[in-house]
Amino acid sequence: MVTKTNHDIEEAFLNYVKKMTSFEEAIGLMFWDLRTGAPKKGVEQRSEVIGMLSSEVFDMSVSGQMKEYLDQLSKPGTFESLSEITKKTVKECKKEYERNIKIPADEYREYVILRSKAESVWEEAKEKSDFQMFQPYLEKLVDFNKKFVEYWGYKDNKYNTLLDMFEPGVTVEQIDKVFAQLRERIVPLVQMVVNADDKPETGFLFKNFPADKQRDFSMYVLGQMGYDFNAGRLDKTVHPFAIGLNPGDVRVTTKYDEKDFRTAVFGTIHEGGHALYEQNISTDLVGTPLATGTSMGIHESQSLFWENFVGRNESFWKKNYEALKEYADGQFDDVNMEDFYRSINVAGPSLIRIEADEMTYPLHIMVRYEIEKGLINGEIEVKDLPDIWNEKMEEYLGIRPENDAEGVLQDVHWSGGSFGYFPSYALGYIYAAQIKNAMDKDIPNFDELLEEGDLKPVKNWLNDKIHQYGKLKEPIEILKDVTGEGLNAQYLIDYLEEKYKRVYRLETE
Amino acid sequence: MVTKTNHDIEEAFLNYVKKMTSFEEAIGLMFWDLRTGAPKKGVEQRSEVIGMLSSEVFDMSVSGQMKEYLDQLSKPGTFESLSEITKKTVKECKKEYERNIKIPADEYREYVILRSKAESVWEEAKEKSDFQMFQPYLEKLVDFNKKFVEYWGYKDNKYNTLLDMFEPGVTVEQIDKVFAQLRERIVPLVQMVVNADDKPETGFLFKNFPADKQRDFSMYVLGQMGYDFNAGRLDKTVHPFAIGLNPGDVRVTTKYDEKDFRTAVFGTIHEGGHALYEQNISTDLVGTPLATGTSMGIHESQSLFWENFVGRNESFWKKNYEALKEYADGQFDDVNMEDFYRSINVAGPSLIRIEADEMTYPLHIMVRYEIEKGLINGEIEVKDLPDIWNEKMEEYLGIRPENDAEGVLQDVHWSGGSFGYFPSYALGYIYAAQIKNAMDKDIPNFDELLEEGDLKPVKNWLNDKIHQYGKLKEPIEILKDVTGEGLNAQYLIDYLEEKYKRVYRLETE
Repeated sequence: MVTKTNHDIEEAFLNYVKKMTSFEEAIGLMFWDLRTGAPKKGVEQRSEVIGMLSSEVFDMSVSGQMKEYLDQLSKPGTFESLSEITKKTVKECKKEYERNIKIPADEYREYVILRSKAESVWEEAKEKSDFQMFQPYLEKLVDFNKKFVEYWGYKDNKYNTLLDMFEPGVTVEQIDKVFAQLRERIVPLVQMVVNADDKPETGFLFKNFPADKQRDFSMYVLGQMGYDFNAGRLDKTVHPFAIGLNPGDVRVTTKYDEKDFRTAVFGTIHEGGHALYEQNISTDLVGTPLATGTSMGIHESQSLFWENFVGRNESFWKKNYEALKEYADGQFDDVNMEDFYRSINVAGPSLIRIEADEMTYPLHIMVRYEIEKGLINGEIEVKDLPDIWNEKMEEYLGIRPENDAEGVLQDVHWSGGSFGYFPSYALGYIYAAQIKNAMDKDIPNFDELLEEGDLKPVKNWLNDKIHQYGKLKEPIEILKDVTGEGLNAQYLIDYLEEKYKRVYRLETE
Repeated sequence: MVTKTNHDIEEAFLNYVKKMTSFEEAIGLMFWDLRTGAPKKGVEQRSEVIGMLSSEVFDMSVSGQMKEYLDQLSKPGTFESLSEITKKTVKECKKEYERNIKIPADEYREYVILRSKAESVWEEAKEKSDFQMFQPYLEKLVDFNKKFVEYWGYKDNKYNTLLDMFEPGVTVEQIDKVFAQLRERIVPLVQMVVNADDKPETGFLFKNFPADKQRDFSMYVLGQMGYDFNAGRLDKTVHPFAIGLNPGDVRVTTKYDEKDFRTAVFGTIHEGGHALYEQNISTDLVGTPLATGTSMGIHESQSLFWENFVGRNESFWKKNYEALKEYADGQFDDVNMEDFYRSINVAGPSLIRIEADEMTYPLHIMVRYEIEKGLINGEIEVKDLPDIWNEKMEEYLGIRPENDAEGVLQDVHWSGGSFGYFPSYALGYIYAAQIKNAMDKDIPNFDELLEEGDLKPVKNWLNDKIHQYGKLKEPIEILKDVTGEGLNAQYLIDYLEEKYKRVYRLETE
């Protein structure tokens, strides 16, 4: 009998994992295609194909073969001999294996069916603004997640286990602390803005900007950001996203509102930020589960960095406002740079998260975080959600939804069983401000570069410090290596206070 | 122990096959994407993914599991109890199994590598017009195919085994007969056209027709044909094709030559003909290997039916010429209908198959057929191909290539190991004429319908007689059921003689 060497096992394991990532790449392309123009009569059959391939990947993640590889490669003596990439791949597969194997197959199947029903019920309930219609499904979804937490186990707080799926290393304790900090400073800032005498004009934003010109301008901005069109493309969709199929094929999607160009332009910059991350992951990681962003939060830090710290920056528009005017249909001919800059940074309380400005956005997230945490820990009941939601909105933002469609029913996440995801959005924002602060030390002429349209040093810095590593480093590790510290909301607070006093012409204290 | 019933086995088999077709659908989408705008830096990795999934399908086709299903379901008593669809699926899988299992795995792997090398060598050789560069690869490819024929076995003629892969049921004996018939009548027809005094004017064809207007007109024509845009889409590519991913998603691609609109318009009609076939296959067949055209020849009969019998028909342009004028940029303003009709039917000897007109096209195929047959039967040697090619071109078409790029090196097929494919093109053409003759009995007002732009009865007739069956019927069975007879070249000859005497204003004999 031929004895297999460690090297043989490592190679066989990597091939096995490569097959899984190949299936995932095929699924990714099918997903992109469904969202960018697949003929509707083929959708049902295509969904079955996606389901078939997804099951295949799931089965491979919990197979006897996988267990054997993980056991063999985890042995003391063996593990140490593996390459760094294999080590981390083993860890990721093990985490996935343990998460998936602990849920009884029957229950998981039931949960998958529930989710798909719940999504369509949610859609109808939202349309009718009828929470009671969705309530029984949401109750079951919460119950499943609570049960899963029991299967998986938890430390300190049940919600930590769900957080770990999206932002490993971040805990309720940390989030409570930074969210409290943010709340303490942003809530009064919102009030100052509401009471400001000199608010930005915005009427000129809502004229007609032809869609094809918006596309051309979006391409121009993506180009300036250093997005590589030989490794990606820009397409139209209904709910914009970016998707990395492999580092050589990272696609951006956007949508065009002819009455409000901001949707496309800031949406494209946001998705472009995600795309720059995926395009610049080291090709050494291709074929492993490491060839993607390290967490939802770090990913969001990249999109928000570009959208807010670059795209809503005055210097960026000093470079690009003339170009925008050329692409636009005369809309800005009589608008000076200062008025334009203020208009794209208009802020204030609003009901819908995805339409919120950069100042109030974290408050929307806090509402959801507190509700999720309460649900999972059994301190809040689903039936009370509409009231709780409305009260929290009033408390944080000073406004109250008139119905559940613009309140508790507005987001898709819960209908798909995603609990623990929302905090990533705010964490990403906090990270982005921390990263910007670190970048300022290496690139003190950041604003000058923006004014010159030379964003290459900014992109290269992010490539070097963050992007290349993919999932090889944990989010907290990235943050530490880049900024020298852990989660810290102060930078975001400083940024918002300084910026909005300028935009709203408030006296400095 | 639980005994599995026949029904259980049938169900398990169908699920197994469904998985194979799911993988194939994913591969199909990746192929389409590569040809319509996938970013070039992702191509290498995407090719690996396609390779991975293709191996998976191949492995499943020859697995022990497949053999077990086939053995169990083929048992007397069991087989008879199966549904018609399962019976035919078993037969198809068995054919595939036996074909694939007979080739030693090592040899097949070597062949796959050779093909991929040969394709890139061919590309370079064609560019340099250097046959000797390609010769050693072609020799090996021919040797492999000869060896495969030995493994697979053959009846009467070795080439029959290769024909069977593309056009099951058609033999060398039959093809020799119909090709001789065609040759006897087309060769003198070509001479008549060459010597005609009153040739069509064509100068006005080569002005400027903007690509986006060509696209709009192509969409308009596809719509008239009954192509369902909710079950497909039209995209731009370099080498146009149609692809059926499932009957609800059948995509057409085309290319735009602004100096010659015929490329896009007739190309789109041609691919649209393929697409109508795939869109109208019964959905009962989805998930089995039967949900596709029954053979290359029958498929080509559909594309050529629409391209030539509809698209190059005078009545079709009586309806559509005014529309074309509107889409065009003034190009046809001074051209009357008669001159236009004659111009798009200009014919005569030419060197390149894919640019040949409908009259000379079959002669191009005959040259290739005779060479392939000779190679596989050991009567021709690869080294002699350039001379043989040129002699045959002279004999059939009266012209001689000046170099191998426009001669023996022009087609990609051989570099990919495809021998036995070419005859399908001419067979499809013969079928198309037979089908048109059968249709005339049911739809005697064919020309009137074209003049009215009412192509629905034509499409429905094809749906009903051919498309719905997919691969459930053999090609010869389809032909027999539709036309009441076997392969018969007379209808094509009659069509060409009648049409070209009209177009070239030759006296009727």
